[in-house]
Amino acid sequence: MRLTAFTDYGLRALMYLAVSSQRGAPCASVQTLADALDVSPHHLAKVAQALSRHGFAETRRGRDGGLTLARDPRELRVGAVVRALEPSDLAPCFEDAGACTITRGCGLRGALARAQESFLAELDRVTLADCVAQPRALLQLVAHGS
Amino acid sequence: MRLTAFTDYGLRALMYLAVSSQRGAPCASVQTLADALDVSPHHLAKVAQALSRHGFAETRRGRDGGLTLARDPRELRVGAVVRALEPSDLAPCFEDAGACTITRGCGLRGALARAQESFLAELDRVTLADCVAQPRALLQLVAHGS
Repeated sequence: MRLTAFTDYGLRALMYLAVSSQRGAPCASVQTLADALDVSPHHLAKVAQALSRHGFAETRRGRDGGLTLARDPRELRVGAVVRALEPSDLAPCFEDAGACTITRGCGLRGALARAQESFLAELDRVTLADCVAQPRALLQLVAHGS
Repeated sequence: MRLTAFTDYGLRALMYLAVSSQRGAPCASVQTLADALDVSPHHLAKVAQALSRHGFAETRRGRDGGLTLARDPRELRVGAVVRALEPSDLAPCFEDAGACTITRGCGLRGALARAQESFLAELDRVTLADCVAQPRALLQLVAHGS
């Protein structure tokens, strides 16, 4: 199992913004984020759109504008971000019962759903602030990116 | 997050063999399994090899040969199968710390690892026998496939 690159970069971008905000620079352009995270600006622009759409970040216009956190990092749960960005269909039958020949009578689907919920519940215990609680290396990144 | 098709078909093949075994037909050829699960024989042959390599199934030779369970379904944990077949690198940094620019000082990696362990621990609670505890529809599949 693997998180999609989309979710992965969404989490990294939020971490960057949390650290950047601690330094008094709450906004970062898509280009700055893309450079800091070593990903294409095109891909990161889509990630930024999703973060805005789900209310985790917002875009500010103007000379010092860019993407900024829309939520307090101490209240933003990693589980909420993963639930919003990550596809939830752990197996093909989660989306389409006809995708598997043994869906009827299957006791595996329920077990997988419970496991997925355990995974997300564990991430609900962690805030964005927890992820950047040791920001020394992250600060270097922000200093380099800005 | 999504299981790979490889793990998905590995679990389905084991479920098929468990039900088939209950009917007194413990062996199934790769072709029979492929037909029943609606997947290419080429793909299923690789899955069967992996199931054998990890000791979940074994190949019997001869006229009535084929793949058969190597373990009692009541003792074979779904978590063990997923741990064996599924890539464990939830994010790129799990395999290569240099794959992410913010690995140093990152508090997310540990949270993801704990969440992954919760996912697997939940699947450790489920046996292959639990997955086929309501085998009526599965029996139809086996009857059709054999």
